[in-house]
Amino acid sequence: MKITCSQNALLNGVNIVSKAVPSKTTMAILECILIDASKGEIKLTANDMEMGIETVITEGTIEQPGIIALDAKLFSDLIRNLPKSDVTIETNETFQTTIRCENAEYKIVGKSGEDFSYIPVIPRNQPLIISQFTLREIVRQTSFSISDNDTNKMMTGILVEITGNHMKMVALDGHRISIRVIELKDSYEDKKVIVPGKTLNEISKIINGSIEDMMEIYITDNHIIFEFENTTMVSRLIDGEYFRYEQMMKSDYETRVRVNKRELMESIARATLLVKEGDKKPIIMNVENQNMELTSSSFIGSMKEDRTVEKEGKDIMIGFNPKFFMDALRVVDDEEVNLYMLNPKAPCFIKNEQETYIYIILPVNFSSVK
Amino acid sequence: MKITCSQNALLNGVNIVSKAVPSKTTMAILECILIDASKGEIKLTANDMEMGIETVITEGTIEQPGIIALDAKLFSDLIRNLPKSDVTIETNETFQTTIRCENAEYKIVGKSGEDFSYIPVIPRNQPLIISQFTLREIVRQTSFSISDNDTNKMMTGILVEITGNHMKMVALDGHRISIRVIELKDSYEDKKVIVPGKTLNEISKIINGSIEDMMEIYITDNHIIFEFENTTMVSRLIDGEYFRYEQMMKSDYETRVRVNKRELMESIARATLLVKEGDKKPIIMNVENQNMELTSSSFIGSMKEDRTVEKEGKDIMIGFNPKFFMDALRVVDDEEVNLYMLNPKAPCFIKNEQETYIYIILPVNFSSVK
Repeated sequence: MKITCSQNALLNGVNIVSKAVPSKTTMAILECILIDASKGEIKLTANDMEMGIETVITEGTIEQPGIIALDAKLFSDLIRNLPKSDVTIETNETFQTTIRCENAEYKIVGKSGEDFSYIPVIPRNQPLIISQFTLREIVRQTSFSISDNDTNKMMTGILVEITGNHMKMVALDGHRISIRVIELKDSYEDKKVIVPGKTLNEISKIINGSIEDMMEIYITDNHIIFEFENTTMVSRLIDGEYFRYEQMMKSDYETRVRVNKRELMESIARATLLVKEGDKKPIIMNVENQNMELTSSSFIGSMKEDRTVEKEGKDIMIGFNPKFFMDALRVVDDEEVNLYMLNPKAPCFIKNEQETYIYIILPVNFSSVK
Repeated sequence: MKITCSQNALLNGVNIVSKAVPSKTTMAILECILIDASKGEIKLTANDMEMGIETVITEGTIEQPGIIALDAKLFSDLIRNLPKSDVTIETNETFQTTIRCENAEYKIVGKSGEDFSYIPVIPRNQPLIISQFTLREIVRQTSFSISDNDTNKMMTGILVEITGNHMKMVALDGHRISIRVIELKDSYEDKKVIVPGKTLNEISKIINGSIEDMMEIYITDNHIIFEFENTTMVSRLIDGEYFRYEQMMKSDYETRVRVNKRELMESIARATLLVKEGDKKPIIMNVENQNMELTSSSFIGSMKEDRTVEKEGKDIMIGFNPKFFMDALRVVDDEEVNLYMLNPKAPCFIKNEQETYIYIILPVNFSSVK
């Protein structure tokens, strides 16, 4: 194989496919990026067997067709440090690979592409069209709520539900639920699938996030496919039926509190300074009339802060894991947020009136005697 | 004690003195910042017994004189997260400390200041006046060469030598020597002391680095004192006689190479990508005529790069630890640098003609059979 392309285009491609290189694997070939220049185009592929990404480098020339697999980390380090000039990659029959750029020349050893798993070819159906900005936002606003613990596979996924011209994403970890609904430009066939959270987080990093640039999403029985520019990402779906989170959604409330988001976040940040990591001390909100008193205490000391709020309904005293509150507030774009609460044992809802976002946080017990 | 001062002034003071809080200590009191408001001013102090810093907060009021020692990390976290407003700190006879700012109120437990070691009072002599910019630069350009290994205490220090209107700093670790000479505005009594590298690195972080703002340095038999604005830092000196590095300074050379600094750094960076950390593979410079070939190889692969250079004298092939070369090149301000070499066993000198900087790097052995 012998190909030439610009350092910039090559680095861009390597950065994209690297997201599918597994950090730990027993199969050495999966730690590689495959360069396939056997079919008239230069295509980079990486695949961790759950998710695969391929991207075509359009600005390049093939002098001699061929295929080579190169260690992803080393290859991406080398390319990143080359001058901004044309890069030539040449391999011989023993997979010795020479990478040249201006006066620099590397020799490294590659692998035959034989054992490499290409990403599966999935028959395409009608694509869902969405802007890269919208996809990135909806993922950012839900994915923090998935569980990072693999023991319940379903909790590591995000429910993606298409109903007419609405797309809903739901993520939950047993302590909280995050829901975002967006309106699509067109209507689509109804779908309900569970996408690995990792897949959605990685695609968010690859896309440019522009509101102008659209992308296509194909959902089949077992896979989800993202296509944009010269890149295709294919991921398996998580099998099974998602949690019946709707039964949590009865949103009766006795107390509604309207509060400035930034100020509430600053207060919670201050309260958590007294809590060491791993120490499960709650922050306690005591809403009386138009005042919210936030308190927290630990063996280090105690903190108390008052905030003026708009309140409707009953007074309430309720405790939360401050991290869950911060995670939700951080992704809300509104300056003022509404908290809906029923009683100290029932979940708190943070949502807007249109319910385009709903964050549900379970309270924690606290001893009311301070 | 009850004092009030602005969050900004307090945070600034806490950030300054925190540099003298030891990261590990068996004496709990040293992990504290002392607030002393007993003598008509608000003074913060921290002291790790080798180096102590005190700073006076000028924008504050004392409602009730007193002294308290507060855990440095907790106190600085709390202050940093308070609103930009007035902060009141109040203590009672059991060292219960209440910190109030707007609607937030913290209660933490402090310590009596009784066991705290104030920084020593040293009689002042004639101060050396230097701009904060110059001090920061000269430290940055030498201190990377000290040893981080405590087994040879002398190597963790920097020689500071005053001769007339010149100040020289020398740092070495057995593999390299870094020397910087600067001209002072005035002439001073000759001095030659060894200052802990840590002291100079910390003072560099505290000063603002402005070319306009001057500072005073006092050197006594056992201490060095830095004074600027409302801050005083006192450090012990390292006892003993410094290495006779001058005997290394015979700068006969057979080869002089003039090379673009940035390009050389980029080439060395590329060469080191093939070398895993801890693996002591050298980079080999082969200078022939007006060409410098850089090569490196490891079990991962090999790299070769040619650079056009200006050369005077003999051809030479010599090997170096690439890190030492990079460290020196990084702090040189010149675009073009001169390398002076005698033979593959003798140190390489990187220096300018005026010898305001001299970086000496010992070569390493390499097998010339590649």
